Order: sequence, then C-alpha cells, then structure tokens
Amino acid sequence: MATLNLVEYDDAPDEVRAVYDDIMAVREVDWINNFWKVIANHPPTLKRTWDSIKQVMAPGALDPLTKEMIYIAVSATNGCEYCIRSHTAAARKQGMTDEMLAELLAVVGMANETNSLADGFDVETDEIFKS
Amino acid sequence: MATLNLVEYDDAPDEVRAVYDDIMAVREVDWINNFWKVIANHPPTLKRTWDSIKQVMAPGALDPLTKEMIYIAVSATNGCEYCIRSHTAAARKQGMTDEMLAELLAVVGMANETNSLADGFDVETDEIFKS
Amino acid sequence: MATLNLVEYDDAPDEVRAVYDDIMAVREVDWINNFWKVIANHPPTLKRTWDSIKQVMAPGALDPLTKEMIYIAVSATNGCEYCIRSHTAAARKQGMTDEMLAELLAVVGMANETNSLADGFDVETDEIFKS
Amino acid sequence: MATLNLVEYDDAPDEVRAVYDDIMAVREVDWINNFWKVIANHPPTLKRTWDSIKQVMAPGALDPLTKEMIYIAVSATNGCEYCIRSHTAAARKQGMTDEMLAELLAVVGMANETNSLADGFDVETDEIFKS
Amino acid sequence: MATLNLVEYDDAPDEVRAVYDDIMAVREVDWINNFWKVIANHPPTLKRTWDSIKQVMAPGALDPLTKEMIYIAVSATNGCEYCIRSHTAAARKQGMTDEMLAELLAVVGMANETNSLADGFDVETDEIFKS
Amino acid sequence: MATLNLVEYDDAPDEVRAVYDDIMAVREVDWINNFWKVIANHPPTLKRTWDSIKQVMAPGALDPLTKEMIYIAVSATNGCEYCIRSHTAAARKQGMTDEMLAELLAVVGMANETNSLADGFDVETDEIFKS
Repeated sequence: MATLNLVEYDDAPDEVRAVYDDIMAVREVDWINNFWKVIANHPPTLKRTWDSIKQVMAPGALDPLTKEMIYIAVSATNGCEYCIRSHTAAARKQGMTDEMLAELLAVVGMANETNSLADGFDVETDEIFKS
Repeated sequence: MATLNLVEYDDAPDEVRAVYDDIMAVREVDWINNFWKVIANHPPTLKRTWDSIKQVMAPGALDPLTKEMIYIAVSATNGCEYCIRSHTAAARKQGMTDEMLAELLAVVGMANETNSLADGFDVETDEIFKS
Repeated sequence: MATLNLVEYDDAPDEVRAVYDDIMAVREVDWINNFWKVIANHPPTLKRTWDSIKQVMAPGALDPLTKEMIYIAVSATNGCEYCIRSHTAAARKQGMTDEMLAELLAVVGMANETNSLADGFDVETDEIFKS
Repeated sequence: MATLNLVEYDDAPDEVRAVYDDIMAVREVDWINNFWKVIANHPPTLKRTWDSIKQVMAPGALDPLTKEMIYIAVSATNGCEYCIRSHTAAARKQGMTDEMLAELLAVVGMANETNSLADGFDVETDEIFKS
Repeated sequence: MATLNLVEYDDAPDEVRAVYDDIMAVREVDWINNFWKVIANHPPTLKRTWDSIKQVMAPGALDPLTKEMIYIAVSATNGCEYCIRSHTAAARKQGMTDEMLAELLAVVGMANETNSLADGFDVETDEIFKS
Repeated sequence: MATLNLVEYDDAPDEVRAVYDDIMAVREVDWINNFWKVIANHPPTLKRTWDSIKQVMAPGALDPLTKEMIYIAVSATNGCEYCIRSHTAAARKQGMTDEMLAELLAVVGMANETNSLADGFDVETDEIFKS
C-alpha cells in the first residue's frame, strides 16, 4: 500500500470521478492506475497533474511516442520503478519496439556516463556552445 | 580549467590524434570540444568513450535527433551544464527547433515531477504494468 | 536481508545497547528499526549517526514536524523508499495529516519539475538573487 | 545566456504579458526573473507552470514559508543553483532567518546522508512502517 | 520480470553466447546474472557494455577491489538496488570485509551530506582548488 | 558569495575558532576553505560536521586516499562542483596521480551508465546476490 489509501472510483467524490472519466476517455482504457488513485486523495493535485500531463503529452512539435520515450529516459535516470513501468507500457502502446527500447536505454546509459565524466573532471563549457 | 589539462591536437600522441581525427570526420567539424580534450589524458578512456558514443548515437531503430533529445533529457535531469550545452547544440544541428526544445523540456519537467510524486507516496506498481 | 546482518539488542555489545537505549528513550518507543540494526555493525557509525540525528532533529529555530517534512522532501527526491516510509511515519506521529502530506509532496513535485527546467534551459541566475 | 532567449516584457505577446502581470501582482514585485523569461518562449509552458506554482505555493494546510523551505530542500538535493538562489530569496522574504536556513540545510544534509546509507546497505523496510 | 525477457544461454544467438562465455571465463563463474541476460536482447549493447566493463574494471593504476568499492559508492548514491547487490557481492569476492563496507558507506554518507550542504549554501569554490 | 556570509577567523567566536584551529592542525594547513566558513554561521553544524568528517576520513579499514577517491566518486555522481574540486585537491595531496584520477572517473562513468541500465530495464536482483 502507498502512504495514502487508494481512492477507488466507486468511493470517489464527483470532482475526482470527473478526472478519472477524462483519463479513461483520453487514454481509451477502462481502468485507473494506482498513481492517480493515490494523488486523488488531494483533488487539486489530481486535477492539476492530469491537466498538465494531458497538455504536455499531447501531439505537438514532438509526437506522443517521442514524448513517452523522453519520459522513460528521465525515469530511468531517477530510478523511479513505477514511472519506468507505466511509461514503458505507454510507449509500447504507441508503437515502441524492443529494439527501440534497447536503443533508448543505451543512449540513457551513455548520457549518464558522460554526465558524470564531464562533471567529475569539471570540464569548462566551450564558448561555441554558449552562443 | 578542468581537473586535468586539455590535450591539444598538436601536443597529442598518435593514438589520441587518431581519435580526434575520427571525431572530426564523423561530426564534420574541424575542432575538438573540451570534453574529449580532457579525457584524452587517459587514451583508453578517450577511445572507449568515443567508440561507444559513435555506436550508440548512430542511426538505428531511433534516428539521431531523437537520440540527441534523449541525451538532453538525461542531462537536464542530472543538471550537467556541459552536457546540456553540448547536446543542445548537437540537437539543433540535427534540426531541433526552439519549439521542440521547449516541448522536450516540458516533458522532462513533468517526468521529474511525477517521479518524485510516485516515489514520495511509494505507489505500488499495477500488476498490469509488470506483465 | 540487508547487505549486513541485523544486530539485535540481545546480541549487541554494550556500546551498541547504550545507543539503542538512547534511541528508545528519546523517541519514546520500545523497539529499534532496521536502519539502526544494520549500521550497528559498525558501532562508531551507529553512535555518530544517532548523535547527529538527535542534534539535527531537535526543536530549534524549526520545529520537529517541519524538520520531518523536510526529511520526506529529500527522501522523495532521492527515491529512498526506506527513508520515505520511516519519516512519513515519524511525521505523522508529530501531527502531519494526509492533507499536509499531499501538499508537501505537491511542492516536492513542483520543485523537481522546475529544477529540471531551470537546469535544462541553463537559466542564468538573476543578479538580485545573489546579493 | 540560457539556451533560449529571454522574452522581455516589451517584446512579449499578449498571452505572455498577462502571465507576467499576474506574477508581479501575486508576488508584489515590479520585475520578472529570468526563469519565467526563458520559459515564456513557449507560452503554454509559461502559463501552465505559473498556474501550477501559484496553486501549489498558496497558503493551505502548510504555510508559504514552510513551502519555500521544502523547495530549498529539494533544490539543494538536486544541486540546482538557480532554484536554490531564487527560493532562498523567496523564503527570506517570508521571514526565514539565517538560523532557520542553517537548520534547514542541516536536516537536508542528514537526510541525504541517511538516504545513501539506507540504500547502500539495502535496508529492508520495517513492517510497522508500511501499515 | 524485467521490461525485456531474459535471454538464456541455450536460446542465445552465437554472438551473445560468445559474450556470455567471456564473462564466465573472466569472472571464473559458471552462470550469467540477470543484468547481462536482459541487455542481451540487444547484442551490440551487450558486447559494448561488457567490453567496457572488462577494460574499466581490470587492474591498472587502481586495483580491482578499489574499483568495486567505487562502483558501490556510485550505486549507493543513485539508490540502484541491483548494482548495490551485485557489486557488494563482487567486492566481497575481492576481499572486502564487513568493516571495509561499513567504512566505505560511512564515507558515501558524509559525501552525500556535504554535497548537499555545499550546493545548498552555494559555496564559492576557493581559488586554490582551481589551480 | 554563498547564501550566508563567510565567517573569517578574526571575526569568529571562540567556539568557531576552536574548530578552525583543529581543522588546520589535522590537515596541516594554515587556512580555512570556504565550506567551513559558510557553515560556521551555525556553530553546532560546523562542529558536528567537522567531528564527523574527522572520524570518517581517518585511517581505518580503508586508507585515507581510498576514502578521498570515494568522496570524489560520490561528488562526481551528484555533480557537486565544490566537492569535486576540494576533494580532488585533497586526494592529490594523498598521492592520487592523474592516471588514478582518470581510472577512478572511468569507473564512476561506467557505474552511472549501468545503474541507469539496470534501473531502466527494471532488472530483477538475482537470488544469489541476496544471500
């Protein structure tokens, strides 16, 4: 169990149900995952977070699959198991293959390696990169 | 100055020059950025890191621009200024617009937010995400 | 099991028991949690860590509940499950309600989001903030 | 300079000016800090981020000063200089003294220390903390 | 189960088996741990990562035990359970005692504490440290 | 300037001077670096942190040079410039050569890479590593 109880649909106040309904409609699913059920304990956080996710993950200059892969990259870097699992599932639904996942994480691995090298040697940023 | 001196091309041993030449050829530039000049103090690290970067960032199941954006996502999450600057420059060269950068970082921001929420409430991973 | 065995009270040397006794007295509990039982394998670390925690978490310019919430904020950011769970329990004992926890983590989430935005865009610190 | 240009008030489109006006009104200041000027390149991110910050940082179950201190705790853990500076300034405006800042960071330091100890020894969470 | 299936030796293509054989030969073990079985889904990542690890962890200016302890230090800081467990096992095989592990993590803890203090107060680097 | 003023020796109260004297004596230097001058604003933090550092970094099951290198490993992973610089200087004083530094950071880089791979694929810990 999380540090707050899960708010199930049947027990949820109307403002929570409205968000749950929108999540299911936008994602074309018929269930709500635990993340939302936990933050639903604080309806303003539920609504704000969902509205933000919906806006940020919508197609724009970047397509939804690229956005899901960026989500995985951050989550793998932070080691957030819940987010890795949920966004890997979401990216697969958007068409991510096993090979794409492997290449994505290979880049994530290299980036984490070279981040620590650049920081560890305290490399000065080349002027050309700042212009 | 970094915590090791910069190894300039003219002062570099042959094994380092060979890597520098390859970096400039593959990237179609005529200069070497500080990151490589610092790790060139240890030629095996220079060669291994470059060979890895070259393999990982090559076109594959993911295109080079997507890979550069993933690099930025990780670097922004870690707060590595050098890597943010160098890979933002690289991504722009690959065609990333200001709007794409803005959307990319909006996703990075949301991912960092929800990572800390999922971890902070210790949300249990839904069984469906593990199958 | 942790990577070192748990040192139980009955098997502990005197210097460890003395710390265990002080932990139970200060916290008004009759048991020792696993964190202390693990670091008790190295008595100087046990004693130093407990003495530090006792000093740092005591009432001062900040009250103990605020301090426990700060502890949760750091632990959620680092994704340390053990510390999230133990300090959420401790904060509740000090009076933290579900609503306070939800607001606390909402702030933690926003801070992690804007940290990655400020770093990702490499925003220059306003002069006024440095004075 | 950041990786995107600063959007100054005089050059800003109406939707950006509206947010800038609201920021200045809510915070009772007559200037806009660089963070907002950078993300203003992407007006939906500017508006969404400000609306979220305004909601999250408003007085509620936690007072604004406590919220600012939690922001500092996260920013210090992530090493985000911009956020450390801007939220330290904001917290001082809310009444944080030097002594409160020192105690706050003492807790942040201890939390980061014990987070790595709990993770490093892979301490199992006590059952009592999960109930 | 990981987010990709485990590639078992008997089902592995030749290029994967060749790496597995080398891992077992170099480490003098007769089994392959899950990390390699997962990344084996992408043979170039398997080969590159193993070649890198083999080079980096070989005796050099630093001995293998020191290198394993540095691996633990990073893994504890990142909270990566898999890496903490596997490299603690590896370090013990190289001769790390319980006391050495305790001292190692005591240093890791202090470093994480003072990192957040130095960042949190935004301490300016002394000129003497930059020369 | 840091977010608190530097406490110079000549202006320091006796309890701060006593710690400064001990730092200079133990380290055999005739100056105090900025880290201590900042946390000296809060004498109990100064004293506690110095006492802890002195205990943790003293020769024991691990020698002081190994401890300094572990400190660098953590600081590079966290990207703490101040700590990277100060502990690189300290490690050099203990005998760390450029080659040792390069090998150390090569390990740090690999560890950060494989940490994100193990987390990103959510690799299950082998039973043998838990025994």
